[in-house]
Amino acid sequence: MAPPLVLTIQSHMTHGRSGNRSAVLPIEVNGIDCDPINTVNFSTHTAYPHIRGTKMTPQELEDILEGLRMNNILKMYTHLLTGYIGDPHIIKVIANLRKELGNGVHYLCDPVLGDSGELYVDPECKQLFKEVLVPIADTITPNQYEAEWLTDMKLNTPQDLLEIVKKLHELGPKNVAISSIEWKHRFVFFSFENGKIQLPVETKSYDRSFDGPGDVFAALLLSNMIKYPEDYEKVAKNTVNGTFCVIKNTFELGFRELAIPQSVEELIHPPELFQPITIEQFLKTNVNE
Amino acid sequence: MAPPLVLTIQSHMTHGRSGNRSAVLPIEVNGIDCDPINTVNFSTHTAYPHIRGTKMTPQELEDILEGLRMNNILKMYTHLLTGYIGDPHIIKVIANLRKELGNGVHYLCDPVLGDSGELYVDPECKQLFKEVLVPIADTITPNQYEAEWLTDMKLNTPQDLLEIVKKLHELGPKNVAISSIEWKHRFVFFSFENGKIQLPVETKSYDRSFDGPGDVFAALLLSNMIKYPEDYEKVAKNTVNGTFCVIKNTFELGFRELAIPQSVEELIHPPELFQPITIEQFLKTNVNE
Repeated sequence: MAPPLVLTIQSHMTHGRSGNRSAVLPIEVNGIDCDPINTVNFSTHTAYPHIRGTKMTPQELEDILEGLRMNNILKMYTHLLTGYIGDPHIIKVIANLRKELGNGVHYLCDPVLGDSGELYVDPECKQLFKEVLVPIADTITPNQYEAEWLTDMKLNTPQDLLEIVKKLHELGPKNVAISSIEWKHRFVFFSFENGKIQLPVETKSYDRSFDGPGDVFAALLLSNMIKYPEDYEKVAKNTVNGTFCVIKNTFELGFRELAIPQSVEELIHPPELFQPITIEQFLKTNVNE
Repeated sequence: MAPPLVLTIQSHMTHGRSGNRSAVLPIEVNGIDCDPINTVNFSTHTAYPHIRGTKMTPQELEDILEGLRMNNILKMYTHLLTGYIGDPHIIKVIANLRKELGNGVHYLCDPVLGDSGELYVDPECKQLFKEVLVPIADTITPNQYEAEWLTDMKLNTPQDLLEIVKKLHELGPKNVAISSIEWKHRFVFFSFENGKIQLPVETKSYDRSFDGPGDVFAALLLSNMIKYPEDYEKVAKNTVNGTFCVIKNTFELGFRELAIPQSVEELIHPPELFQPITIEQFLKTNVNE
């Protein structure tokens, strides 16, 4: 069998940890080769006051893909990973690419639309994520707000969550991971194999914001699915605990940016800080108390 | 003291392991944060038959630096790393940047000019490396051919090597590491602190070529100098053995590209395969027998 090779199409910045700068290291330290296409080339991510740099045009993306195609590299990819995409034309290029790669390639789409109630992308991109990319993805990793936007449903209770996840599977993806649910009891929720295996994991949070942990989460989920095929409990545990350790180390070091290089050991062998509970326990949790 | 932060200005390609794609992971797995500026954005490195993508213009590089300057990030850098630069204007931008960063920032310049007797860069770039970049670098990592081109001397014997290294120190750099010398006995040679500490290490080679190990070597040398300040023997050993393990794993796996993600453990904790010998032993070695 060919070794795994991930094509990851995300943003790049010189300083800061989001997009490919959050995703590549977690994948590669897990021993998995990863080819990054950088959709933007910025000095910093956009949470800084001043941004300089360039965005890739759809033609430039097509050119990079053509270079890979001509060298017979496109057919080597086993996994495709995408995150934030701010340009509807780029979304269409990626949809065509996914078709060209074929269904043998596992596509993890992180439908980055926004956070904390604020939409990052324009309405056309939101619609294209919902109607074009999510339906052709094998796995999606929305946060709670993205899950609500994709389903036009509200997520207030564990029961709501099960309904939303069901609806998300119906859109297409076999695997759905809700990367964070900010009830008083904070949860991450995994639903694999069209809901046959569902693993809620209660976790902690810190009283500050971080840029890029969603991109770490998606990259780690993909890495762990590659490393531990069908061992969904291990996948869920390692993804939650690895991501949490990055956040914890960042908080404890007082870093502005995610302490990813300082967390290499935990990204490979995360400690078992949080464990999945059963759906019965989850439904009984008073999540807002 | 501020944590180390490396600014690495090198090429980027989606598939293949040279430039920043060889350098970033070895630095980051050693727990050191690293900010990459990508001087080219190609589909693959140039050893593939078809190349697509774009090169950064000097103005685009200035813009990225301006974004970093405006956000007060330029002053956070403790180390600067550069590799292949094919554009004389970009060399001049980097020379100005080095001046702006100040002498408190350690500059490791890998003077990538060519290999196996073949020059990769045009004569103007060669001259600018020799007259502009090498003199303002703290550390340089030429291969044997680059060492010859920079000094206009020939490297046939251990005695020649000592003379060449002396001349290279006279050009400016306090530390000189000759990354590979392809005598029958293959050597890597370290000369720290203007030659006060000199460590020759005999190593092995494989009967095939590899793209990008020089970029791994330079990145690992910088990482080890950060991790083990003034413990030059450890720096030399870890750099040689870490780089060798990447090559060994690539060879044994039969990969076209350097097996860097598959060598994470050895990049952090390399086994002691090769050890430095003394200068006396080195001078007595019949290197061509």
